[in-house]
Amino acid sequence: MKALILADGHVRLGEIPQPIPRENEVLIKVLKAGICQTDLELIKGYMGFKGVPGHEFVGRVVQSARTEWMNKRVVGEINIACGGCPSCLRGRSKHCPNRSVLGILEKDGAFAEYIALPFENLHLIPESVSDTEAVFVEPLAAACDVLEHTNIDDRTSVAVLGDGKLGLLIAQVIKLKTPHVICYGKHEKKLEALRMAGIFVSTRTGKEKGTYDVVIEATGRASGLEQALSIVRPEGLVILKSTTREQVPMDTSKIVVDEIRLIGSRCGPFGKAIDLLSNRRVKVEHLVQGEYPLESYADAFESAASPGNVKVLFVP
Amino acid sequence: MKALILADGHVRLGEIPQPIPRENEVLIKVLKAGICQTDLELIKGYMGFKGVPGHEFVGRVVQSARTEWMNKRVVGEINIACGGCPSCLRGRSKHCPNRSVLGILEKDGAFAEYIALPFENLHLIPESVSDTEAVFVEPLAAACDVLEHTNIDDRTSVAVLGDGKLGLLIAQVIKLKTPHVICYGKHEKKLEALRMAGIFVSTRTGKEKGTYDVVIEATGRASGLEQALSIVRPEGLVILKSTTREQVPMDTSKIVVDEIRLIGSRCGPFGKAIDLLSNRRVKVEHLVQGEYPLESYADAFESAASPGNVKVLFVP
Repeated sequence: MKALILADGHVRLGEIPQPIPRENEVLIKVLKAGICQTDLELIKGYMGFKGVPGHEFVGRVVQSARTEWMNKRVVGEINIACGGCPSCLRGRSKHCPNRSVLGILEKDGAFAEYIALPFENLHLIPESVSDTEAVFVEPLAAACDVLEHTNIDDRTSVAVLGDGKLGLLIAQVIKLKTPHVICYGKHEKKLEALRMAGIFVSTRTGKEKGTYDVVIEATGRASGLEQALSIVRPEGLVILKSTTREQVPMDTSKIVVDEIRLIGSRCGPFGKAIDLLSNRRVKVEHLVQGEYPLESYADAFESAASPGNVKVLFVP
Repeated sequence: MKALILADGHVRLGEIPQPIPRENEVLIKVLKAGICQTDLELIKGYMGFKGVPGHEFVGRVVQSARTEWMNKRVVGEINIACGGCPSCLRGRSKHCPNRSVLGILEKDGAFAEYIALPFENLHLIPESVSDTEAVFVEPLAAACDVLEHTNIDDRTSVAVLGDGKLGLLIAQVIKLKTPHVICYGKHEKKLEALRMAGIFVSTRTGKEKGTYDVVIEATGRASGLEQALSIVRPEGLVILKSTTREQVPMDTSKIVVDEIRLIGSRCGPFGKAIDLLSNRRVKVEHLVQGEYPLESYADAFESAASPGNVKVLFVP
């Protein structure tokens, strides 16, 4: 089958054997797959990953020992856990120390014609959700995860830093809980859709020092944390979403003196994300700038890395 | 009166006017005052403080509009709040944005013969607590503050990083909640008292990656945070206590991927600290290496900065 193969900081299109599903896995024909900021970081060397990248996808099950999954349209959770360690046994399989991660850690991903995934990772996509929308289930679940870490109600003031895909999704999710949400970004074009949805947006930060109850850092840059710390109120909460290879010097005394809480947030609840898309409570299709075949991977990655763009898809 | 005066990175002994208490303040004759790591940082330029440093003290009230405080032995909370801002009105006066802080921010401190403090900052010291013990109320309260941020019970595993005064106090406070506490330090001599109290100690870290439910960073160095992040378990909690001017590059992706929580902790509950000293549940007198008159400030600060020493007192 065709697949994009990452090795030593270079991506190439190659022909590799179709994955052979294990006993607990299905074979999935990839319909669409999204390029994530993490994929761009992987290419730069993050995680030292070698293999097929890609972890945002929708596909159709084409081989399954359990017939109820056959021909079903699915998305898949990306952490493949061992099932037997203390983390797995207390239901926190996303922190299984023995896990592989689709397209990120020791498991070939979705920038290919086919992938194999365990049954327990699968989520059925209802007919009301399009293929393009379904590709957003994984990042939208990651956006929803911020709600798992704190109670946000209609009195909570929230700032979202970053107008990348994740920031734009998080702002929409937060807006369902509180009207007091603002998204800070750099690109008027990207912020426009939020403004249309009644969400405050701004391309300037700095004057709002010590203001917000909750600040969600989704800039994709290590420097975003310092910005978040400057605008969160004393005893406020900063939720960190960015994974990046950069390291920046940090003034940690601000965290101590203002007794700020900081929480890292990674993957989230797929079921909740599918519900939000199915019920049209979060809009995503306008975020797509282009669709490319695997052969045009160079153009696709260039487009995905372009500052004005949000989401670029592969159609393998 | 005699006082130590800090200006432009230099300390000198000077003669300055005795403070004149405001309507809501008492005048206190300082009996003993402790040198804190923060004082050493102030001398290096932290907070840009100019004036009389010193915020750990015990004293006797010598002038008070309310007679019930006259001649009483007291310690004092260090944050002097405005009483009228939103933080104060919701009972969080330690985060009052208009606050001054004894010996740290726009308020002359306790390395002097006399200080003035508001009534609401005062705590009576019972007869069962010695002057030397009473000087530890402020840092012991700061140690107790870690319990305000998380539930620690007898199944929680806790690592304390740092064998300075704060680390040694925190380890004792945590031991009251769980037997599973270890203190990592650099000085066998300082750790010995903890070992005698049945607390695990170690001068080596590094092999315990991803182990502890809670890690309390009290090294006094910015690099302590990275060490804390390396030994906390996924979804575990790091409590930051160190305030330092250093900045170190930080790999924040670890916080995101392992969904670690980080909380800054500053001042704590004085009442709880006084109870612990009064009931002999925490021992502090063995931590004192020496007592000095204000005139010997150079020797006192040198002794306080000496790596093997924990606590040095002034007796003004």
